[in-house]
Amino acid sequence: MELIAQIQANTALTIGLIFGLAALGTAIGFGLLGGKFLEGAARQPEMANMLQTKMFIIAGLLDAVSIIGVAMGLLMMFANPLIAAVSGAAG
Amino acid sequence: MELIAQIQANTALTIGLIFGLAALGTAIGFGLLGGKFLEGAARQPEMANMLQTKMFIIAGLLDAVSIIGVAMGLLMMFANPLIAAVSGAAG
Amino acid sequence: MELIAQIQANTALTIGLIFGLAALGTAIGFGLLGGKFLEGAARQPEMANMLQTKMFIIAGLLDAVSIIGVAMGLLMMFANPLIAAVSGAAG
Amino acid sequence: MELIAQIQANTALTIGLIFGLAALGTAIGFGLLGGKFLEGAARQPEMANMLQTKMFIIAGLLDAVSIIGVAMGLLMMFANPLIAAVSGAAG
Amino acid sequence: MELIAQIQANTALTIGLIFGLAALGTAIGFGLLGGKFLEGAARQPEMANMLQTKMFIIAGLLDAVSIIGVAMGLLMMFANPLIAAVSGAAG
Amino acid sequence: MELIAQIQANTALTIGLIFGLAALGTAIGFGLLGGKFLEGAARQPEMANMLQTKMFIIAGLLDAVSIIGVAMGLLMMFANPLIAAVSGAAG
Amino acid sequence: MELIAQIQANTALTIGLIFGLAALGTAIGFGLLGGKFLEGAARQPEMANMLQTKMFIIAGLLDAVSIIGVAMGLLMMFANPLIAAVSGAAG
Amino acid sequence: MELIAQIQANTALTIGLIFGLAALGTAIGFGLLGGKFLEGAARQPEMANMLQTKMFIIAGLLDAVSIIGVAMGLLMMFANPLIAAVSGAAG
Amino acid sequence: MELIAQIQANTALTIGLIFGLAALGTAIGFGLLGGKFLEGAARQPEMANMLQTKMFIIAGLLDAVSIIGVAMGLLMMFANPLIAAVSGAAG
Amino acid sequence: MELIAQIQANTALTIGLIFGLAALGTAIGFGLLGGKFLEGAARQPEMANMLQTKMFIIAGLLDAVSIIGVAMGLLMMFANPLIAAVSGAAG
Amino acid sequence: MELIAQIQANTALTIGLIFGLAALGTAIGFGLLGGKFLEGAARQPEMANMLQTKMFIIAGLLDAVSIIGVAMGLLMMFANPLIAAVSGAAG
Amino acid sequence: MELIAQIQANTALTIGLIFGLAALGTAIGFGLLGGKFLEGAARQPEMANMLQTKMFIIAGLLDAVSIIGVAMGLLMMFANPLIAAVSGAAG
Amino acid sequence: MELIAQIQANTALTIGLIFGLAALGTAIGFGLLGGKFLEGAARQPEMANMLQTKMFIIAGLLDAVSIIGVAMGLLMMFANPLIAAVSGAAG
Amino acid sequence: MELIAQIQANTALTIGLIFGLAALGTAIGFGLLGGKFLEGAARQPEMANMLQTKMFIIAGLLDAVSIIGVAMGLLMMFANPLIAAVSGAAG
Repeated sequence: MELIAQIQANTALTIGLIFGLAALGTAIGFGLLGGKFLEGAARQPEMANMLQTKMFIIAGLLDAVSIIGVAMGLLMMFANPLIAAVSGAAG
Repeated sequence: MELIAQIQANTALTIGLIFGLAALGTAIGFGLLGGKFLEGAARQPEMANMLQTKMFIIAGLLDAVSIIGVAMGLLMMFANPLIAAVSGAAG
Repeated sequence: MELIAQIQANTALTIGLIFGLAALGTAIGFGLLGGKFLEGAARQPEMANMLQTKMFIIAGLLDAVSIIGVAMGLLMMFANPLIAAVSGAAG
Repeated sequence: MELIAQIQANTALTIGLIFGLAALGTAIGFGLLGGKFLEGAARQPEMANMLQTKMFIIAGLLDAVSIIGVAMGLLMMFANPLIAAVSGAAG
Repeated sequence: MELIAQIQANTALTIGLIFGLAALGTAIGFGLLGGKFLEGAARQPEMANMLQTKMFIIAGLLDAVSIIGVAMGLLMMFANPLIAAVSGAAG
Repeated sequence: MELIAQIQANTALTIGLIFGLAALGTAIGFGLLGGKFLEGAARQPEMANMLQTKMFIIAGLLDAVSIIGVAMGLLMMFANPLIAAVSGAAG
Repeated sequence: MELIAQIQANTALTIGLIFGLAALGTAIGFGLLGGKFLEGAARQPEMANMLQTKMFIIAGLLDAVSIIGVAMGLLMMFANPLIAAVSGAAG
Repeated sequence: MELIAQIQANTALTIGLIFGLAALGTAIGFGLLGGKFLEGAARQPEMANMLQTKMFIIAGLLDAVSIIGVAMGLLMMFANPLIAAVSGAAG
Repeated sequence: MELIAQIQANTALTIGLIFGLAALGTAIGFGLLGGKFLEGAARQPEMANMLQTKMFIIAGLLDAVSIIGVAMGLLMMFANPLIAAVSGAAG
Repeated sequence: MELIAQIQANTALTIGLIFGLAALGTAIGFGLLGGKFLEGAARQPEMANMLQTKMFIIAGLLDAVSIIGVAMGLLMMFANPLIAAVSGAAG
Repeated sequence: MELIAQIQANTALTIGLIFGLAALGTAIGFGLLGGKFLEGAARQPEMANMLQTKMFIIAGLLDAVSIIGVAMGLLMMFANPLIAAVSGAAG
Repeated sequence: MELIAQIQANTALTIGLIFGLAALGTAIGFGLLGGKFLEGAARQPEMANMLQTKMFIIAGLLDAVSIIGVAMGLLMMFANPLIAAVSGAAG
Repeated sequence: MELIAQIQANTALTIGLIFGLAALGTAIGFGLLGGKFLEGAARQPEMANMLQTKMFIIAGLLDAVSIIGVAMGLLMMFANPLIAAVSGAAG
Repeated sequence: MELIAQIQANTALTIGLIFGLAALGTAIGFGLLGGKFLEGAARQPEMANMLQTKMFIIAGLLDAVSIIGVAMGLLMMFANPLIAAVSGAAG
């Protein structure tokens, strides 16, 4: 029990690190990207839809690692795979 | 009990890290994005509604990871899934 | 009692982190956003009301995560949900 | 007594963090915002009053989280709600 | 006695944090704001008085949180409200 | 068991470091890259498809190390190869 | 005696923090403000006196929190009010 | 066993450092490089292929140290050469 | 004796902090201010004396807090007032 | 054995420091250098080959210390020369 | 003896802090100031002597706090006044 | 043996510090220098050889301290002169 | 002996701090100053000697504190005056 | 022996600090200086030799403190003068 609790306590900090840095990066990244998009759309309104489609593709790339990090954070939160090694060794 | 209290104490810091960095990032990101939007709307008032619609789409993307982080922070606050592993091992 | 006091002591630092970073981010974010708004309003006074309406919408988005963080900070201050897990395990 | 003193000692640092970062953010935020306001008022004096009214609205938003933080800091200083949980558990 | 001394020792650092960051922020904030004011007054001398009046209003807002922090620092220095909770529990 | 638990606890922090920094870097990198792409596409719409193809090639390079890091983070999460050395020495 | 010495030792660091940050902020703030003043005075010599008067007003605001901090630092140096609470409790 | 476990625990942090910094650097470096490439390709479309070939050469140089670091991180993960010295001394 | 030595040891660091930060701030502040002065004097040599007089006034303000800090540092070095409280309590 | 393990554990962190900082520096350095190269090649395509030759020379200089660091990191990883001194003293 | 040695050990770090930060600040400050002087002297050679005289005055102000710090550092190095208080209390 | 091992362990960190910072500095320095060289060579191709010769001279100066550091790092790695003092004292 | 060794160990770090920061500051300061000098000399070659003379005067001022720090570092290295106080007290 | 080993261990870190910061500063300083030199030489090729001579003089000044630091680092590496004080006291 103590060993598992120690891993869980460190896992809590890990989750905070992943979520915090990912949220910070995503917000700043979209702030830069979206500002350029609005500039382009304001100058050439007839191209706003084309630009928006392009932006969604970039958004997917921009978000990719963050979303994977989020998914892994959720996995560690509900079913921490790091415990399996300890349980398996003890079983 | 001690093991659970130790996890909860670390979880408290995790929540502070998630909320603090997410709030910082979101505020700066919207500061950059909104400034560009107001510039565009001030130059071409007839396009302000179109630009606003576009901005909402970007806002959704910008906020996404932060909101997920907030939701996970709330979950950890009320029903900490990290404790389940310890309880389950003790049960 | 000792376990609860330890969680409360860490919670105090959590609250400081949330309030401090949220206040810092919000102030800088509105400093950037408001400066652009005043520029726009000074150049085209006849559009100042339209721009102000737009700014309120952005302000809502900009503040969102901070306000949630503030609400959660208040909740942790008055009725800390992290203690429930320890109390429940002891009950 | 010792448990309460430990919480109070950490609370002291919390208050310093909230007040210090909020004061830093507010001062820099108003430095940016006010500079833009004076520029606008110097260029178009006939609009100075309208701009001032607008600036007060932004000032309210800019200050909001800081003021809430200040209020919470005062509350923790005079009637620390974090102690209630320990007292209640001991009662 | 020991408990009170421990709180007072942490309070000393709190006061240093509040005064130091507030002085830093205020000085930089007024450096930015005052530079813009002097620019405006140098370009349009006939408006210097109007601009000065406006600047005082902004100065009040800029200083607000710092002054509250200063007042609270003084309060903690002379009559630390954090001790009351410990004294009350011991009384 | 204790030895494995100690490695797993450090591995938790490792995963947080990899995911957090990779997400931060990817988001900022695509924010810079995507902004340039949208600028170029807005100026010369007839070349948007060519530019998009080019951007995908850069995106692949930009993401490469992050994706490898993510893959390694997942590997460490589910089947930590660092434990093998200890197990093998104990076998 | 030991309790007082511990408070005095922390107070020493507090004084260093207040004086150091206040001196840093004031020097940089006046560097920015004075540069703008000299620019304005060099361009319009006939207005140098008016600008100088205005600058003194800003200087008063810029220095305010620093001077209060200096005064409090001196007070803590010669008659530390934080000791009174401990002495009063022991008396 | 304990000696090997201690080396493996430090190796875990080493891997996090290598992967994290390399991913951060590569992402920012390609963000700068790719932005210049897209600018050049958008201005002179007939040269896009020549520029792309050039960019691949730079990409190889830019990635070189990161890829070596990644390879070494993988080596340390699966067959840590640092353990050999200890094993050899014990053999 | 031990109590006094502990206070003196912390006072040594305090002096280093005050002198170091004050010297750093003053040097950078005069670097900014003096550069503007030389620019102005080079453009309008007939006004160099007037500008120099003005600069001395700003220099007095810029140095004020640093000089007070220096004086206090000297006072703490030769006749540390923080010791008086301990000596007085022991007398 | 323990002495060697302690050196190896610190060596692990050394390797992480060398590889991480070298990868970060190389990536940013080539990001700056390559951007200038692509600009030059886009403006004057007939000179692209000459510029490329020049760039390879700079690349060799830019990489030099990093590559030496990488080689030394590999040496420390496989045959740590720091252990020889301890082994020699024990032999 | 031990008490004096402890004060001397901390004094060593103090001297390093004063000399290091003062040297850093002075070098950067004169880098900024001297660059402006050379610019002015290159544009108007007939005024180089007048500007040089002015620069010496600023240099005196720029160096003042650093030189005082240097003098105090020398004093602490050869005849540390902080020891007098301990010696006096022991005499 | 223990004394030597302790010195070697610290030497490991020293080597990491020297190699890491030197690689970081060299890469960024050549990134700045090489960019200027390519700009100059692209504008005036007939002078590219002269400029290249000049750049090699600067490169020698730029690298000098780094290369000395690298040489010293290698010396410490293979024949640590810091151990001689301890061995000599023990001989 | 132990007391002297402790002071010498701290003195070692002091020397590293003085030399490191002084070298960093001097290098960056001359980088800024020398760049301006070369610009001026390239534009007006007939004034290069006059400018060079001026630059030497500034160089003397720029180096002053660094050179004093170097001299003091050498003094502490060969005949540490901080030890005299301890030796004198023991004599 | 132990006392000498402790000083040597700290000296190792000192050497790392001196070499690392000096290499970083020199590389960045020559990056700035050399870039300006190449710009000047590219614009006015007939003056390249005169500028190069000037640059060598600046290079001597720029390197001075770094080279002294390197020399002192070598001295500490091969014949550490800090040990003499301890040996002399023990003799």
